[in-house]
Amino acid sequence: MPWDTEFEAAFNPKVIAIVGASSSASTSGGMWAPGVGFITRLREMGFTGRIHPINPKATEIAGLKAYPSLASVPDPIDLVIVSVPAPAVPAVLEDCIVAGAKNIHIFTAGFEETGEPEGEELGRRIREIAHRGGLRVVGPNCMGLYVPSANLAYWPEGCTESGPVAFLSQSGRLAQDWAEYAQGYGVRFSKVISYGNALTLDCTDFLEYLATDPETKIIGMYLEGVRDGQKFARQVKEINRQKPVIVWKGGLTEPGSRAVASHTGALGGEGAIWSAFFKQTGAIRADSLEEIADLTMTFLYLKPPGGRRVALMGVGGGISVASADICAWEGFQVPTLTAKTRRELRGFVPPAGNSIRNPLDIAVALLNPTNFERTLELIANDPLIDVLLIGRHWFMTRYGPPDMHQKLTEVLIRFAKRNNKPLVVALQTYTDDPEVRSKQTKIRAELLGAGIPVYDSQQRASRALAKFIQYHEFYKTES
Amino acid sequence: MPWDTEFEAAFNPKVIAIVGASSSASTSGGMWAPGVGFITRLREMGFTGRIHPINPKATEIAGLKAYPSLASVPDPIDLVIVSVPAPAVPAVLEDCIVAGAKNIHIFTAGFEETGEPEGEELGRRIREIAHRGGLRVVGPNCMGLYVPSANLAYWPEGCTESGPVAFLSQSGRLAQDWAEYAQGYGVRFSKVISYGNALTLDCTDFLEYLATDPETKIIGMYLEGVRDGQKFARQVKEINRQKPVIVWKGGLTEPGSRAVASHTGALGGEGAIWSAFFKQTGAIRADSLEEIADLTMTFLYLKPPGGRRVALMGVGGGISVASADICAWEGFQVPTLTAKTRRELRGFVPPAGNSIRNPLDIAVALLNPTNFERTLELIANDPLIDVLLIGRHWFMTRYGPPDMHQKLTEVLIRFAKRNNKPLVVALQTYTDDPEVRSKQTKIRAELLGAGIPVYDSQQRASRALAKFIQYHEFYKTES
Repeated sequence: MPWDTEFEAAFNPKVIAIVGASSSASTSGGMWAPGVGFITRLREMGFTGRIHPINPKATEIAGLKAYPSLASVPDPIDLVIVSVPAPAVPAVLEDCIVAGAKNIHIFTAGFEETGEPEGEELGRRIREIAHRGGLRVVGPNCMGLYVPSANLAYWPEGCTESGPVAFLSQSGRLAQDWAEYAQGYGVRFSKVISYGNALTLDCTDFLEYLATDPETKIIGMYLEGVRDGQKFARQVKEINRQKPVIVWKGGLTEPGSRAVASHTGALGGEGAIWSAFFKQTGAIRADSLEEIADLTMTFLYLKPPGGRRVALMGVGGGISVASADICAWEGFQVPTLTAKTRRELRGFVPPAGNSIRNPLDIAVALLNPTNFERTLELIANDPLIDVLLIGRHWFMTRYGPPDMHQKLTEVLIRFAKRNNKPLVVALQTYTDDPEVRSKQTKIRAELLGAGIPVYDSQQRASRALAKFIQYHEFYKTES
Repeated sequence: MPWDTEFEAAFNPKVIAIVGASSSASTSGGMWAPGVGFITRLREMGFTGRIHPINPKATEIAGLKAYPSLASVPDPIDLVIVSVPAPAVPAVLEDCIVAGAKNIHIFTAGFEETGEPEGEELGRRIREIAHRGGLRVVGPNCMGLYVPSANLAYWPEGCTESGPVAFLSQSGRLAQDWAEYAQGYGVRFSKVISYGNALTLDCTDFLEYLATDPETKIIGMYLEGVRDGQKFARQVKEINRQKPVIVWKGGLTEPGSRAVASHTGALGGEGAIWSAFFKQTGAIRADSLEEIADLTMTFLYLKPPGGRRVALMGVGGGISVASADICAWEGFQVPTLTAKTRRELRGFVPPAGNSIRNPLDIAVALLNPTNFERTLELIANDPLIDVLLIGRHWFMTRYGPPDMHQKLTEVLIRFAKRNNKPLVVALQTYTDDPEVRSKQTKIRAELLGAGIPVYDSQQRASRALAKFIQYHEFYKTES
């Protein structure tokens, strides 16, 4: 399905028709009533285009004039949202053809993914109609499009700020989760596309669009199946160099693959094929939403390190040992700092209770902002070090001097501005204490605001960092 | 070092002497002033025994009569806490010998772990004195003992409730973290022993004590090195069958091992040796504090499943796929439910938007407590299922019907009482929203209160469950 300017209108519609909108919440299942919900959400997002509810039994819905059919709408329709029950969908698609509407988002579920004969038959029918009418269908069985720059969202409380990250997802719930999760990580979106069963438009189609979308710089995706695997691999290989492509492939295992069949009706791929895909294309592999978050943030904020030699700094000997193990498992070296660096550190760090070799376990540097800054300076200037991983674990407890967090955050932000070596922070906490949690959220936002990536654990920091370095090495070895 | 009744007094002391207590916070470094801190903390814990500060320059400290030396204390001393600077420790140990005090906790750091000649020499000297005087030393370089039943704690805000879990740790920070983290997981302690450099008492000594301690049912540990590895393996093999032994070995990698040397001066072991240890003893391996928490909770609350066939239930197709992948990676089967179960589920679950094969993705069961209970009942009675993993992911967002969480929690608690199959819950959340976080904390506490293990993610749930099953299989295949 080739792209044209007509489809562009789906991402920035002036006129949206909603089929299945109903004024009575109860008939459509209360909170699940998608028709009214879509109108509410578009309004919440500040959508400025026209919205036409389609319902032959109503004259007005949510203060808007209702039309009996798409064909009776006087405007040319940029996007049709379909939320009628599955058996009624074929007739709506026929109506789309009559009305000349080409861009369709089918929210409705109940097709191939049910595994039931009726659902499969309905799936075949809508596929035939869509192909016959040349319809560009997002879905069925999906949440559709979230485009902040066009004030477009079909789930509640979407953020209206836009950014350089695109996300393709065959799961609507994961798309929503990521959109919400992203708020705390300073990630903002160009386009989020939840496309469910991929009736006519598949990830390859969306990828073609995102490849040239000037708003999009990083592309993430949650995939369950790909119709044209070879095309997908060719595309990713080409796009990945300019716009990092982060892929979470669900259903790599046998039970996961069965769950895929029940979810979007797709064919889950074999693990070996997908391993080859990652190897050949250099795409970045994620295995969870947490990894999608960590990797996206890393690509957004970090400059590539020159190598895998990491300086670790935190407080606590056990934490230091654990961090070193984690880094080694992820393929990093944790070299002993040069004699020169250690000599200079020894100038203000007493031997008892402090380790200056690397990992650095220096209480006096975390209780004194001046010492903290000197330490950062010294390790960043050590020629044996490529990247700095700063643990702020100890501050994420109920103890410690109350104003120190703020002071050290200021030092980090000031230091990061003049520092040339990549620096990341891990803000792990082991408490449910709401005060500590909100402190964590606050410090994370401040550091992210200064362009410093912040992870919820050393484990997550080092894993994301390892994949980030691997990405850059892929192109180094290739050229 | 054999145990005797005299050492028992260290865990339940009537008389504690604190060497290095000072009335002036500033001279000992403000918040780091351990001497006064120890007195404050013992009082906070409600310690009812006698506390004698030792300081030749003071007559009274924190309202207590100060003595110039241990030898001048009229009482027999059950436990001496040493918090003077490292160079002064040898003289204090000589004073212990004169005073006849045998149980010593050395808080002070600055010995072998510094890697400096002075520290190493001091280490040799205190070792010689301790051996000569037959002193039982906890430490140096550690936080000592936390025994809630004896109102004993040397770090702030210790919980005064006791429980069946013991923890041995060469890291004081990790011991404190775990004690705090444990609060949210319903884990309470018999004894937590932070023992740092293990001058005379090593983990094998403490293990000998815990093996017969009637208060202790589960033993966890964070180890950096073990002096007598063969003895340790023999002990663990014997104890593990009655009291599960969960071991986190820090320093399994080369940089981790170097960090160990800088932390407690211990020799980190080789990875291969430790792999063999786990294989031979059946001890449960943990690689992080999160795993210590998850495994301890699992052993506390769960009955062993009959096998590895898991029923997965959550909301969201993508989450279902991800959960199935995670379970398969951890060695579980996720079988399709029997035709009979599916037929009965179909009685109240419509095909569209719901999957009943397994994973179960059933919105109508999570929006209706009656349906939820019927679904639990049906999957628990399915002969193909050994264990139930219930994801409550969807409820951990800002959306969803506001009172549903409470209702479903009540159903789960009621159901768990009559249900015979092991059941666990994952309460994952992707938001910083304090309301959602506090809801998660509240639901977790309620479910744990009813004996249902609760994990922060499906990943963590399935990993802990896999290790739990592996433990029980170890003894099945052995007998």
